[in-house]
Order: sequence, then C-alpha cells, then structure tokens
Amino acid sequence: MSSGLNMSRRIRRTPYTDRVETAGVRGFTVVNHMLLPKAYQPSVEDDYWHLREHVQLWDVSCQRQVEIKGPDATKLVQWMTPRNLSHAKVGQCLYVPLIDECGGLINDPVLLKIEEDRYWLSIADSDVLLYAKGLAIGAGFEVNISEPDVSPLAVQGPKAEDLLASLFGESIRSIGFFRFAYVDFLGTQQLLARSGYSRQGGFEIYLKNSSLGSALWDTVWQAGESMNIRPGCPNLIERIEGGLFSYGNDMTRENTPLEIGLGKYCALDGSVNFIGKEPLLKIANEGVSREIRGVLFDGEACPTCSTPWPVMVGSRKVGEITSAIWSPRLHRNVGLSMIDRDYWDAGQDVMVLSSDGNRRTGIISDLPFA
Amino acid sequence: MSSGLNMSRRIRRTPYTDRVETAGVRGFTVVNHMLLPKAYQPSVEDDYWHLREHVQLWDVSCQRQVEIKGPDATKLVQWMTPRNLSHAKVGQCLYVPLIDECGGLINDPVLLKIEEDRYWLSIADSDVLLYAKGLAIGAGFEVNISEPDVSPLAVQGPKAEDLLASLFGESIRSIGFFRFAYVDFLGTQQLLARSGYSRQGGFEIYLKNSSLGSALWDTVWQAGESMNIRPGCPNLIERIEGGLFSYGNDMTRENTPLEIGLGKYCALDGSVNFIGKEPLLKIANEGVSREIRGVLFDGEACPTCSTPWPVMVGSRKVGEITSAIWSPRLHRNVGLSMIDRDYWDAGQDVMVLSSDGNRRTGIISDLPFA
Repeated sequence: MSSGLNMSRRIRRTPYTDRVETAGVRGFTVVNHMLLPKAYQPSVEDDYWHLREHVQLWDVSCQRQVEIKGPDATKLVQWMTPRNLSHAKVGQCLYVPLIDECGGLINDPVLLKIEEDRYWLSIADSDVLLYAKGLAIGAGFEVNISEPDVSPLAVQGPKAEDLLASLFGESIRSIGFFRFAYVDFLGTQQLLARSGYSRQGGFEIYLKNSSLGSALWDTVWQAGESMNIRPGCPNLIERIEGGLFSYGNDMTRENTPLEIGLGKYCALDGSVNFIGKEPLLKIANEGVSREIRGVLFDGEACPTCSTPWPVMVGSRKVGEITSAIWSPRLHRNVGLSMIDRDYWDAGQDVMVLSSDGNRRTGIISDLPFA
Repeated sequence: MSSGLNMSRRIRRTPYTDRVETAGVRGFTVVNHMLLPKAYQPSVEDDYWHLREHVQLWDVSCQRQVEIKGPDATKLVQWMTPRNLSHAKVGQCLYVPLIDECGGLINDPVLLKIEEDRYWLSIADSDVLLYAKGLAIGAGFEVNISEPDVSPLAVQGPKAEDLLASLFGESIRSIGFFRFAYVDFLGTQQLLARSGYSRQGGFEIYLKNSSLGSALWDTVWQAGESMNIRPGCPNLIERIEGGLFSYGNDMTRENTPLEIGLGKYCALDGSVNFIGKEPLLKIANEGVSREIRGVLFDGEACPTCSTPWPVMVGSRKVGEITSAIWSPRLHRNVGLSMIDRDYWDAGQDVMVLSSDGNRRTGIISDLPFA
C-alpha cells in the first residue's frame, strides 16, 4: 500500500536523493524527518532475489548520528543503555537498546566508539538527540551533543566486499563484523563499517560532508557495474525472514528489550548503572509474559501490515503481528509478532486476522526463519 | 512534488484515517510518526478558496499531546520555555517556543493547562516527549510524562462556529480565542479549543478515545453538509499568506525564537528561569542578525521548496526561502524566508533562485502578507 508523499524542507532530502530519483525510486518512507527510499522497479520481490546474489547501494542517510562528546560522554552513553560498555573499544560498533525509566524502548541504535570520549549513536526513528540533550541538561553533564553532517551509504549483498576492495584496497577485507576503519575518498578520510540492515553481508560508508554525496554514489556505482549493482533499500522480505526488528514497527516504548529477545544486550547482573535498571531487573527476574516470534501463515500474499493484526488461538487473542509480507522463497507469508508466553513455542497453531478480513491458518516459528 | 509513501505500523494511522481515505485524500506527509493528510481533490488552490468561505474538517491527530503531570509539572514546563507561565490559567492555550541550552528551537507547541499540575504540550514535528523525559530523569523531577490517546480534529473556516454551535450548543460561542471548554459527545466529555493552524477562525476537538474517531468525523460531517463542508488540511497558500510558521520548515534548532519574531513569547526581563536563558538574553541584548520575513516574487507558479532557496541582492546571498507557493489571490508567488538584518526592510528588492533554475525578481514583505 502506498499513497502520495508531499514534500517540504521538513522532510529532509539526503546527499544521495538526486541520484536515488535518477535511479528510478518508486516510493519513500520518512525516518528521522528524512527520506528513506522504499521501492525501486520492478518489485520488492525482485530486489530480494537480487540482494541475495549481487550487491546493492542503499541510501540510509536517515540513520542519523547523534554525536556525544566531552568529559562525561562515556558516563552519559552508559546511563542511556542497559548494555555493559565498560569494555567497548574505539573502532567498535555495538548494538545498544536505549530504555526509559520504566524499561520501555526509546530506540535501538548502533553505537560507534569514535574516540575515548566521543561516540555516535546511529539511530532508528526517534529523536534520540533531544532525549540525550534532556538528560545532559537535567543532570548537568559536561558533554556536547550534536547531529554531525554524516550520511551513511550502505553497500549490501554478497559482492559488497569485492566491490569495496576494488575501490578502497584489499585492507578493507580485514575489517571485522561490527568494526570500522577509515578509507580515503577524494582526499578525505571516511569511516567504513562492516554492518548494515540485511543478513547478506556488507558495509556502511558513514560519509562526512554532504557535498560529496553524488560523487560517492557515482564512484561506488561505477565500480559495481560489472557486478550487476542495483539501487536498493532495506528489503521487507529479507528483513522479516532474517529476524531484523524495526523500531516503531516491531517494538515501541510499550516493549522492554527483554520482550524483543535483547536480553543478551542487557547487563542483568547489575554490574552497571543505567536508566530503568530497577524495573528491567525486576522484569528479568519475574520473566516476560510475551516475546517476539515469527509466524508463518497461509493464503495469498498478505496486504501491508499498517496496524497490528490479531493472532488467535481459538477465540483467545494470544498476540499481534506487527510486520508481514509474502516470502517467495518459503512460499508462505512471514510475519514478526509479539506472542504471549503460553503460546510462543515453535509449532503452535494459530489463526491470523489480516486487515483484508481473511482468517489465515498459521504456525509460530523461531527467528530467523529457516 | 509528491512521490509514493510506503506504509507500515511505524507511520501511524489516526482515528480518522479510514474516513480521510474514503473522502479521497490524494497525499500525506508524516508528522510525529503519524499521517497528516496534505491534499484532496481537486487542488490546494481550490481548497484555499473554500477554506476562506466555508468550513473544513482536518485530521490533525499528528499534533500529539505530551502530557506532563505531577508535583513538579509546573516547574518542568516553565523550565522548558522562555515564556512566562506564572499567570497561566486552567482552560488556557498558550503558544510556547521550547528551546535548548543554546537558545535553539526544539519545538513550538501549544500548551494547554488542563489542571493546576497537569499540562498538554500539543506539539509540532519533534519528539518532545523524549526531551521532557530526559529532563525529568536527569533532574529528578517528580512528574509523569506520557502520550495520552488524544487526537485533535480541527474544524476550520468562517462557518466553524455555527457548525459547532449546532452540534454542541450555543455556549461554545463564548469560548475565547486560545481558550478551551468541554462538550458532551456520545456521553463523553471532550475538550474543545478555539484554535487551529489557519487564520480563518475555527476550533479543535481534542478527541479522547480513538475508538470514537469515525463517529466524531461522521457527526461533524453531517452537521456541516448544509454549510458546504469539505475535508481539508493545513493549506500551504493560506499558511504562508497568514505568516504561520512551520517547525522543521521555517525554523529548526539553528534558529532562536528571536529570529522567528517570537520575542513577545520570551520573558526577556529575566523574571523566570528557563533552559537557554543566558544565551537568549545575550542575543536579545545584542540584537539578531537575521529574522523571518515574507518575500513576494515573480514568474510562473514556483515549484515545491524542499531545500532552501537562496535570496540574493546582487551577488550577495542575503537569506533563504524555506516555504513557498503561488498565491492565486495576490497573483504572485509568496515565500517565508530568513533574511539578514541589512536587507530585511519591507520593499527591499531581491532575486530568488528557485530550484527550477529560474532567477525571479522579488521584494521583501512584512508578515502576514496583506
């Protein structure tokens, strides 16, 4: 389902939007007050197969950076997340759930430790900058919080490494998963991380200096032409199959990280202090009453899930599907869902009430989907 | 300019979206992670003339409420804005710029004083809830901060009062501008304010309880049929002509309230304490170097302004246009712009470099446009 999106300065264009439009983008969504391409010709399904075999260029500038630097930067960042950051090293990317005083998720950014007292939170769709500013002002922390001119361009897919090695040299092959290094681009040093919002491998170039956007896009594009490069974007089929969650879709402030299966990113041993520690430890101790699961379900290709769909066992509502799409590989619909404890075991039979009015038989699955 | 908007749960539907779609909406934008209708048939120009004569129903649910209540609520709200709130009364709406520690605008909500220790900030497009939470957590304030299930439906235009009097009784005529009272709707008490994002007069119903959305829309619609009611939305022509500013478009964190002409909402006498007081008073003392102005400019109907357009005097850039559209009443293009001090007097000749590559002669104008 798509409809017209009216443009204005408030819906920010990115350093790559000109190129994205030339490349034939068919639709956008808005993340962090910025355009995120969501569809190219010919279809999401075609993009899916291509992403699994080749290499794609994604404008993910909307992953804005919240830079926190200064004497209290480490203290503030640790306070914002239940993840123990005491061993974090410069050059590392860390997935860090952020929670409020009740344990509810505020965002799930990737943290980049740029220097010992300088961090970037590469954020999902909520104004973490304002939250961090509020905390720093309220607590009197000595930090500087800003949104630098940094716009990630993702190179995703199995051929991404070969492509970037041809551009930036063989040394980029030694960058580990969720690690970053710097490469030279037109005389500037640019941060290159092995990361990205797919399970097909790849890198993200955190381009500093918007004016280089078109040049970077063109350079990567030309280097990829022999590899069948295409423009792309986070692919809903691949994301759901891979069990990659989306803030605002599969988790909101109504959810704790424990419900999203992020317990491994929470210092539940009480070793560090963070906002929401007491409620989170209490919930961990009691056990969660619902948790995220996959659902495989029947019938023709399902519509877009723009409001949660009830998941039923008999006449009892046991959960909700929050993202869903037809999987051309599994030949069934796949969904991400929040499911009550008594019904979350893989193999549980359920009924999905999709928004087209259909009742669809389904089954609970572990994540990622096989 | 519009393009496809891809839907998902993250781009929240409103209690009125079903009705808005049935009414033939042609496009949306996204504000506070929620759909805001932006165009109906036949055109923005047609909507403009209709709004000035009749009455329209606007889904402005995206004006989310940030509820702040508790013993420290008054203290927190006053800390967030330079406006002196010491005389604010229950039943009052107040336009309150929010600024950060540097004096930069974070939002420009309408504050509703619901009870002595309970407020709603009816916000523009930034996550004020997270900012308020950050401040409260950081400073240890005793408050509860939440987003209640409240979705404003605006009734705008010169016939709005007659329409609502026919529905809710003659007493609504005595509600003053930027005041609110409660009306009965299907046995529930609903907040009705004389306010709205147009200069044509009207009200906003702050509907509590999403499940009543379609019923409220239908009820107002039926009462308005004899008055030539139409679905509508904030109208760009009317907004610019009326000098109504838009956060994210005409002002950002790069601007102080003084640059936006909001000095009258700032206690520059030092009588209250607020975040950013010192830098704001310093700027007020020195005088601003740029300020918001209108620009009337020539040529055919201008394109959408999705990145700021330079405003030139000779070879010197003296400002930027941030919102612009063709005015069918003034037979010229009208724009809102940030203009340097030496060039901001009404009557100053300028050249506008619009994004279609045209150089257009223009003239600085006071706001609102005549």
